Amino acid sequence: MTIKIGILGYGNLGRGVECAIQQNADMELKAVFTRRKPEQVKILTADVPVYSLDEILAHQEEIDVLILCGGSAKDLPEQTPEYAKWFNLIDSFDTHANIPEHFARVDEVCRQNQKVGLISAGWDPGMFSLNRLYAKAILPEGQDYTFWGKGVSQGHSDAIRRLEGVKDAKQYTIPIETALEAVRSGQQPQLTTREKHLRECFVVAEEGADLAKLEEDIKTMPNYFADYDTIVHFIDEETMAKEHAGIPHGGFVLHSGKTGWNKEHNQLIEYQLKLDSNPEFTASVLVAYARAVYRLAQEKQYGGKTVFDIAPAYLSPMTGEELRKHLL
Amino acid sequence: MTIKIGILGYGNLGRGVECAIQQNADMELKAVFTRRKPEQVKILTADVPVYSLDEILAHQEEIDVLILCGGSAKDLPEQTPEYAKWFNLIDSFDTHANIPEHFARVDEVCRQNQKVGLISAGWDPGMFSLNRLYAKAILPEGQDYTFWGKGVSQGHSDAIRRLEGVKDAKQYTIPIETALEAVRSGQQPQLTTREKHLRECFVVAEEGADLAKLEEDIKTMPNYFADYDTIVHFIDEETMAKEHAGIPHGGFVLHSGKTGWNKEHNQLIEYQLKLDSNPEFTASVLVAYARAVYRLAQEKQYGGKTVFDIAPAYLSPMTGEELRKHLL
Repeated sequence: MTIKIGILGYGNLGRGVECAIQQNADMELKAVFTRRKPEQVKILTADVPVYSLDEILAHQEEIDVLILCGGSAKDLPEQTPEYAKWFNLIDSFDTHANIPEHFARVDEVCRQNQKVGLISAGWDPGMFSLNRLYAKAILPEGQDYTFWGKGVSQGHSDAIRRLEGVKDAKQYTIPIETALEAVRSGQQPQLTTREKHLRECFVVAEEGADLAKLEEDIKTMPNYFADYDTIVHFIDEETMAKEHAGIPHGGFVLHSGKTGWNKEHNQLIEYQLKLDSNPEFTASVLVAYARAVYRLAQEKQYGGKTVFDIAPAYLSPMTGEELRKHLL
Repeated sequence: MTIKIGILGYGNLGRGVECAIQQNADMELKAVFTRRKPEQVKILTADVPVYSLDEILAHQEEIDVLILCGGSAKDLPEQTPEYAKWFNLIDSFDTHANIPEHFARVDEVCRQNQKVGLISAGWDPGMFSLNRLYAKAILPEGQDYTFWGKGVSQGHSDAIRRLEGVKDAKQYTIPIETALEAVRSGQQPQLTTREKHLRECFVVAEEGADLAKLEEDIKTMPNYFADYDTIVHFIDEETMAKEHAGIPHGGFVLHSGKTGWNKEHNQLIEYQLKLDSNPEFTASVLVAYARAVYRLAQEKQYGGKTVFDIAPAYLSPMTGEELRKHLL
């Protein structure tokens, strides 16, 4: 008996999910659903069909858990509530400000249709959220800090690419070491945006572009760069292809707390991710939580869920007995 | 409405629990139970009674969750199954090899008596176990590594103190930085005991003791030191009191995994604790999980539990809505 997975959307994240399924013996990829023409989508797994998304309802019985691999801006706000009518499912919705609304919609559809719908799995939201919760519950007299990077920010890279005179761009978010050290020291510092992260940009300019103006335009761009110290490098296309093809990311959740009758002791909790591939790691989290979604559905624990609602044991293929013996 | 806590056993851990309760507005310390004469036990909280353990059953109705603060060698194997007949409870049982047996006994008593009994909460077992489970579930093609320290090992300090000619001793377990770096590099090294940890000992010798022999006795002690590189310093009592009075500890759980169709990407998960006070941190974990025990009991989810069985949301005083809004 394997857990039968469907993938909706086959970009970097969908391909990552496909790779992660390969690493889990109790999982099986049953189908990929796409909005593109199915014959144009080549997947890695042999003998697994690619269907048009229009046909998805015909395959409802074949899928235990549908993993949604679309974007948070336009795809998931529509798709997750829609397909929760028909499937137990999971997404990686990551627009933090809109999570309560997204949850409410998915929860309602799931309850009406006796489905399990887990939203916002991944690493932030996801593993970082879990670490914020655990740390705050354990050390209530404390402060938490989230740092991102070093890693590629898709949103910031896109913002640069939209400027006139830019052919290509990649932006790295870099946590500032002195800020990390200040937190680790137990001081519980108040840190400004500029003190926490640096932004480093690699830009391929169009021929004849005014580089000084371009650099100024980037550094002063509101919301994206104006509040940060920003470094701009102009490089050629070859260097871009050779040195900046990857999608690394990661970051830190730190929680600095005090214990003792007079708060005399510092306690530091630090969680760090260092990821060669951001989408493949997010996909790996999705697949582990898909196992939990399957089990909750078996137990008829229907409704909207987040990582906060899932007992850790549900993520593992091991039995409770094995877990207690080998991992506790 | 507060959660009414009883503490059984008032040593470093019991005092830590008392301090942690003070930091949680939804918790209230109702009583401390001791095997000593109650009048000899001075606690920090005003107006909370200290009772003889013999009287504990008379106070069953006043206590929502009993936190057991005894030792794993002799106290908890007896106390946890015994008091689970009468109380929802939690312990920090940390003899890893005996966890399955301890769990089975507590689980049986809890089921028979409609109680919730959570065992082995703390940091290892506890938070470290959780991190091993999460990381392994997310990155099944990977390897995990647990390092302890820098911190005081009570067991190793006691082993030195038992030697003839030793007045006092403190042993620090120190993770070896080159081993940590090898793991962080993604190589997934096989590490021997000696390669992972160093043992540093501070010893106050009796007057006239043969220091060279003592040092040799320590370094060759089977199980405790023979498999490690061990450093021995002889110091005077004053230095011991001034520089080695604390009980710091901590450590690392690292998981180095591979993702991608051909395992081409390294992914590193690292969890670190840096604790000024080992017992106060363990106590803080116990108190957060006591909240979960209370809630499970309200829901009649009786039986033996471990940290693996507890959805993270149960640890927090915040509502699901607040958690999704502020921490996800």
